[in-house]
Amino acid sequence: MKMSGLSERTGVPVATLKYYLREGLLHSGRVTSRTQAEYDDSHVERVRLIRALTEVGGLSLATVDRVLAVIADPEPHRLDVLATAQQALLGQEPPADPRADSRALVWLRRRGWQVDPHDPVIDELDRAWAACDDAQLGLDEARMDAYADAALAIAEIDVASVPAEPQAAVRQVVLGTVLVDPLLAALRRLAQQHAAVSAHSG
Amino acid sequence: MKMSGLSERTGVPVATLKYYLREGLLHSGRVTSRTQAEYDDSHVERVRLIRALTEVGGLSLATVDRVLAVIADPEPHRLDVLATAQQALLGQEPPADPRADSRALVWLRRRGWQVDPHDPVIDELDRAWAACDDAQLGLDEARMDAYADAALAIAEIDVASVPAEPQAAVRQVVLGTVLVDPLLAALRRLAQQHAAVSAHSG
Repeated sequence: MKMSGLSERTGVPVATLKYYLREGLLHSGRVTSRTQAEYDDSHVERVRLIRALTEVGGLSLATVDRVLAVIADPEPHRLDVLATAQQALLGQEPPADPRADSRALVWLRRRGWQVDPHDPVIDELDRAWAACDDAQLGLDEARMDAYADAALAIAEIDVASVPAEPQAAVRQVVLGTVLVDPLLAALRRLAQQHAAVSAHSG
Repeated sequence: MKMSGLSERTGVPVATLKYYLREGLLHSGRVTSRTQAEYDDSHVERVRLIRALTEVGGLSLATVDRVLAVIADPEPHRLDVLATAQQALLGQEPPADPRADSRALVWLRRRGWQVDPHDPVIDELDRAWAACDDAQLGLDEARMDAYADAALAIAEIDVASVPAEPQAAVRQVVLGTVLVDPLLAALRRLAQQHAAVSAHSG
């Protein structure tokens, strides 16, 4: 199809498609004349992926670029698929030193969770927990433990869905991380409604 | 304390505090001279809340303004705390007509979840689900059901923590929605690591 056809199939304006091409987010089409190229289903798929990552996943185009690079070319035989995925999402920041005063790390150790103590996600957890405290949400360790049990149930579904082949695994983990978070957030809102109605009628 | 003291206590620059005052996000201090005012713990608490909502919750200042207005003055005896909270977060958009082709709504009905079919969150769920499809994540109804069970476990913790008094309830629901999502996202990443390690050693 021509670029106008690609625009119709994906709902993305031609100007935006040209921008994706210039930035290297979208691979070139097969050149058919001096001013035209032919695009195929691989272009449709890629454009839909970029839109999903930016519009639903909320990623910047710079992060999308990094994520697509990791998906296209993960190091072969890389065992640490999760670390690769996280690196793509967080950028090339060196791992942080574990903070001696990290409440999250102390709590994670007490739970016996096997996680990398240098992982910047632990900082995120500390920050999010502190924000809940600042807002006086009463988020004590008992409630954290209950949330953690539910998060582990979700993680087990995630991990079970990761294929064995490394490249496919990286793709699944990266995209699953970015795209399933908004889905879980929407499910949480709807589950709250259902739980509130059930509690009142129960 | 003076404004410089408020800045020190909260880590927020004086210029930003002045902006919050101008925009009405922060209430005025007690005027002590033509150029000075005195601030107290209520200002510290408010500034921390604004920072938590913008930095951890990712809200725009316009949304923060709406959220703070709802928290400060929910309609008395309002039963529909969740609807109020959602309205504050999503803006004053009129409820959408339920889409006849909503896969999420069909699936929710099959599960027997009691939710408002006009709720814009159902649209969000449809969009997130479609994005996962576009990315070929293999998110079928069986996996959705498994996620939904975990989301319901989270929602039951949320609902159990909501106080009976309406104003406190609105505050808890609004802030819990915005601030606990990032916490759950961080927990999911860490739980994935733990689950992956456990799966390999198990």
